[in-house]
Amino acid sequence: MASVSVDEAMRRAIELAARGLGTTSPNPVVGCVLLDADGEVVGEGFHAYAGGPHAEIVALAQAGHRAKGGTAVVTLEPCDHTGRTGPCSDALVQAQVARVVIAVPDPTPVAAGGAATLRAAGIRVDLGVRATEAENGNVAWLTAMRRGWPYVIWKYAATLDGRSAAADGTSMWITSEAARMDVHALRATVDAVIVGVGTVLADDPRLTVRNLRDGSLAIRQPLRVVVDSAGRTPLDAQIRDAAARTWIATAAEVGAGPDGGVDLPALLAALHAKGVRAVLLEGGPKLAGAFLAAGLVDRVVGYLAPRLLGAGPAALVDAGVTTIAEAIDLEITDVTQIGPDLRITALPRKREG
Amino acid sequence: MASVSVDEAMRRAIELAARGLGTTSPNPVVGCVLLDADGEVVGEGFHAYAGGPHAEIVALAQAGHRAKGGTAVVTLEPCDHTGRTGPCSDALVQAQVARVVIAVPDPTPVAAGGAATLRAAGIRVDLGVRATEAENGNVAWLTAMRRGWPYVIWKYAATLDGRSAAADGTSMWITSEAARMDVHALRATVDAVIVGVGTVLADDPRLTVRNLRDGSLAIRQPLRVVVDSAGRTPLDAQIRDAAARTWIATAAEVGAGPDGGVDLPALLAALHAKGVRAVLLEGGPKLAGAFLAAGLVDRVVGYLAPRLLGAGPAALVDAGVTTIAEAIDLEITDVTQIGPDLRITALPRKREG
Repeated sequence: MASVSVDEAMRRAIELAARGLGTTSPNPVVGCVLLDADGEVVGEGFHAYAGGPHAEIVALAQAGHRAKGGTAVVTLEPCDHTGRTGPCSDALVQAQVARVVIAVPDPTPVAAGGAATLRAAGIRVDLGVRATEAENGNVAWLTAMRRGWPYVIWKYAATLDGRSAAADGTSMWITSEAARMDVHALRATVDAVIVGVGTVLADDPRLTVRNLRDGSLAIRQPLRVVVDSAGRTPLDAQIRDAAARTWIATAAEVGAGPDGGVDLPALLAALHAKGVRAVLLEGGPKLAGAFLAAGLVDRVVGYLAPRLLGAGPAALVDAGVTTIAEAIDLEITDVTQIGPDLRITALPRKREG
Repeated sequence: MASVSVDEAMRRAIELAARGLGTTSPNPVVGCVLLDADGEVVGEGFHAYAGGPHAEIVALAQAGHRAKGGTAVVTLEPCDHTGRTGPCSDALVQAQVARVVIAVPDPTPVAAGGAATLRAAGIRVDLGVRATEAENGNVAWLTAMRRGWPYVIWKYAATLDGRSAAADGTSMWITSEAARMDVHALRATVDAVIVGVGTVLADDPRLTVRNLRDGSLAIRQPLRVVVDSAGRTPLDAQIRDAAARTWIATAAEVGAGPDGGVDLPALLAALHAKGVRAVLLEGGPKLAGAFLAAGLVDRVVGYLAPRLLGAGPAALVDAGVTTIAEAIDLEITDVTQIGPDLRITALPRKREG
């Protein structure tokens, strides 16, 4: 087998890391590629689920004695603490690797320090290889850990004229089956989905991750969160079924914001304490407006159907904007055709203070 | 010079034809490539403006005696009548070409018959080469001539949540300068722009084709049409200035529809009689709704700005849709990033009767 460069190995490690997306929480995704002294790949691993072996341990087990004198290429700084598994830094020292190449340092106080431990053991440590790419692959977890509340993705579906339902309230279906399957795949990457009680009362959604063809449930389901200041979620609402965990977040439990509704920063802090790192905000339009007005949305994913309605509820209301100069500016980072629909991904631009 | 195939020559003729877009009306765009007996290009031409020489005449003039025994490759059936210029069919016969290859037959009773005249003179005539491509290049003119009313493009600009202005009515500017320049380029391809009187009263637009950098006017300006049932366009409205012709279309002049407003099919028939083949419908939302509800829109061009407002007027209202099953379905044919904005081009799907 031909030798590969450290850069190529990191690209591969980032690909491996992405396989864990949606199942590692509250841990990050991590990928690791082990090269022997000649630069040949002798081990590969990724972190697949919380409590399971870390990426480095999987790769070291594959490599065995061939790790000695080699290079470990890993997307995130190896952990330095004993949690559900032992410290990866120690395992790398024991395997006698000569060099560890890291894309992104670990931002968490408890797990960080791996690089220092490795260096103290005489191992060469390089940081920052393909850092931007690795950051992007772990953006939700890194963002959440650095600031202490979850990464929020607002997803909406609308017609080209911005309607989320027709004048009579009918909305099944605005978008195609392909787009709805894509939404289920998006849900599978987060730890929690959030809706307002209005959406529960109007649409009675299940908000589970399902195979739309046969209805079967994914093994891992995100926490379902209803923002329900006064506790109006019906006892027989589908969102309360046994298919996944559900949290009815009331103002009494979470605290009330200035408008009397559930305090959104307190809600996100409570979710962070529950181990939630990425959330998908699924509506309705008023709750989305409140999140956007408070600057709490990190990414927008809009599914635009090639249809026109000319009447009916808007996809977004009450976002705190009254004049054009206050518009919430986004940067489009991706446009993909999903069946007949368009999926537009955009990031809010930082506002000047 | 190497010889080219008839297919390649037609591709080139279609490119040449497109150069006339926006300046040939009420004539179609036409391109012509002349090959000599060995297949070498000996003449090229396109129809540049009404009253000017036809594409075939330009190409024949370039070729001179080298046209004899050659092949004329032309995007539209050569005309067979004397209008402002003589029949192209006669010119091709006199030049003694051996063969004429045509993409699309002429749908107009007065100009058609060119192929028959050529065949009667012993010239081989082939029809249908790259017909779809040539049709697309001439779609507005061909559609208008076949059915007797202009091809209608509805253009709108909106935020990702479908708003065309903020809550306080401010809308300058929803989209970027790059998108607005693109709109001026689009205007330059049509014979008329249409707005409702509400837009005139609200925004006082000029609706001219301008260079946005220095404000200079294009030489050819589309007719400006205000749909103004009761004649409320102010005497000092900018749309009445001397920069271009303007028609204030009142219900008294055009006729009234069932709702008392200007009858839209009668409006389009009147524009056709004025030689208008392609129109750009620029708003407002109610007029667009009326055109869409009547099935009078042939193409939708939406400029979507990566911004959110959450309040303010919608880009489209009153399109005759009350429930999701009645939604006006489109097919997206193009998505292009224009500066920070997205330009989405879509065609209404034919409705089943």
